Amino acid sequence: MTSVVQSEEILVQQSEPLFIGVDGGGSKCKARLENANGQLLAEAIAGPANPATDFAQTTDSILSACQRVLQQAGYASAMLAQSHVVLGLAGVNVPRVQRQMQNWQHPFASMQVTTDLHIACLGAHGGRDGAILITGTGTAAFATVNAKQWLFSAQGFPLGDRGSGAWLGWQGVCATLDVLDGLQPATELTRSICRRLGVSSNTDLISCCIGYKAADYGQLAPLVLQQQQQGDPYACDITARGLGYIQALLQRLQHTGATRIVMIGGLALQLAALLPAALQQQLSPVQGSPEVGAAALARQYFLEKVI
Amino acid sequence: MTSVVQSEEILVQQSEPLFIGVDGGGSKCKARLENANGQLLAEAIAGPANPATDFAQTTDSILSACQRVLQQAGYASAMLAQSHVVLGLAGVNVPRVQRQMQNWQHPFASMQVTTDLHIACLGAHGGRDGAILITGTGTAAFATVNAKQWLFSAQGFPLGDRGSGAWLGWQGVCATLDVLDGLQPATELTRSICRRLGVSSNTDLISCCIGYKAADYGQLAPLVLQQQQQGDPYACDITARGLGYIQALLQRLQHTGATRIVMIGGLALQLAALLPAALQQQLSPVQGSPEVGAAALARQYFLEKVI
Repeated sequence: MTSVVQSEEILVQQSEPLFIGVDGGGSKCKARLENANGQLLAEAIAGPANPATDFAQTTDSILSACQRVLQQAGYASAMLAQSHVVLGLAGVNVPRVQRQMQNWQHPFASMQVTTDLHIACLGAHGGRDGAILITGTGTAAFATVNAKQWLFSAQGFPLGDRGSGAWLGWQGVCATLDVLDGLQPATELTRSICRRLGVSSNTDLISCCIGYKAADYGQLAPLVLQQQQQGDPYACDITARGLGYIQALLQRLQHTGATRIVMIGGLALQLAALLPAALQQQLSPVQGSPEVGAAALARQYFLEKVI
Repeated sequence: MTSVVQSEEILVQQSEPLFIGVDGGGSKCKARLENANGQLLAEAIAGPANPATDFAQTTDSILSACQRVLQQAGYASAMLAQSHVVLGLAGVNVPRVQRQMQNWQHPFASMQVTTDLHIACLGAHGGRDGAILITGTGTAAFATVNAKQWLFSAQGFPLGDRGSGAWLGWQGVCATLDVLDGLQPATELTRSICRRLGVSSNTDLISCCIGYKAADYGQLAPLVLQQQQQGDPYACDITARGLGYIQALLQRLQHTGATRIVMIGGLALQLAALLPAALQQQLSPVQGSPEVGAAALARQYFLEKVI
């Protein structure tokens, strides 16, 4: 029996280099394909890519995302060998995870690994220097200026993460516990937290929160920000303390020499709107996604080697 | 082959009831033997007794402590059957643990189970009604007045436990992280925490504190209280916030109708000395240990049944 192997992959359409920026995370992995001029050719999504929790799944997801993005742009998979890739991944600040990723026998022309914060920062500034303050479930501040990097906050809940969604929700729960203990009077914030969690006593609330992680407390942050708008005294106090920390982080970022500072993350818009007007004016709008930053970095690395 | 069993236990020296108060905890188990007049006959110590973590070890330790206390007072082990026992144990506020202890086929004349806080409170007031505020690694407030009980705080770290050793040390670490991030200037407190933990950067400190439990943070509380005495601004601010919470708890305890309030626990003396003079004057000295409270409760239960 003979078989005729038909493959599109034998056709390599061009010899020009391609650039793929990959933003990997615990829920999905996004890839962005650009040509040497920085033109967007295609975008694609694949499965989770967190090397600290599952290395095999991470490389599978990265490969899938890169194959899909080439396919969408009309290229054969063999073009992986012509592609220069930058991966921005959470967890690679841990040396062991960084080494494991570097040692991966990848099929690309070249591969560089950096942190998710680095590509998010580059993306937010269209591939150029700048600083970002992330306020989502957690809080982190990052700057990259003249090839030097700074990282502040990012201590993880409950040591740090002040001003984050997790911190706002957690502070709301602490205020509610004081009310249920009879130490402070109830307000609409504490009543709304009790309603949301279906609790009416200190013991209920403690049982409910056993094993709560950052994301669980983060679910309660909208209640705090909503009640802050209504003038609830606990919500106003909590928000003011969170904003005080965010202001200190923004000032610290300015001292790195970054000329553009961008706030990103799920709570960025809401919290930025509550900052003093003078500080709001010093913030810049976000220019691109983390994949944009990763693709820009891939081109930059390539040019540095070629020139 | 025949064997002659010789036993002291066949001699039961008296038919009067005996009373044993047991204070069980995660590190050891203490027993106190009293006669019907409340006279101390003997005291003894045995191994750990935390029914929530190890039920078999708990009943072994309780039995050992009770046998030892009888032996020390010159009684045979058979007198266990004449002994009315009250056990004060951590963890029995959980219904499952409480049921398991109640169902134990014990060798005593009678056995009652209550919480560690209940016997600590009774002991602190010489077996009578009153309130206690515990500040050790954690914070808890308890009152028993006219057979009614109140429990405040005791939420566990990091939800509650403000003013406790764990909370003071944790706040010290948070202040140090801000300094290492360049958000705030260093002080003697933050320098002493860095020296103690052998760290000099934000990343070092975060790595060092990964997996820290309440007791680990509690180890740093003496540094905070020491620096508060020297006027260190962070130490003064942290201590003032902790004391504010402690004052609110003391006021709440006064509203239960308790006429005596006692502060106990590893940090009680140091923190009480920092309270406003008027509040210090409302505190009473501790009268006895938790075992004293447990033995008093054993006599009380016996009298209530007999009369």
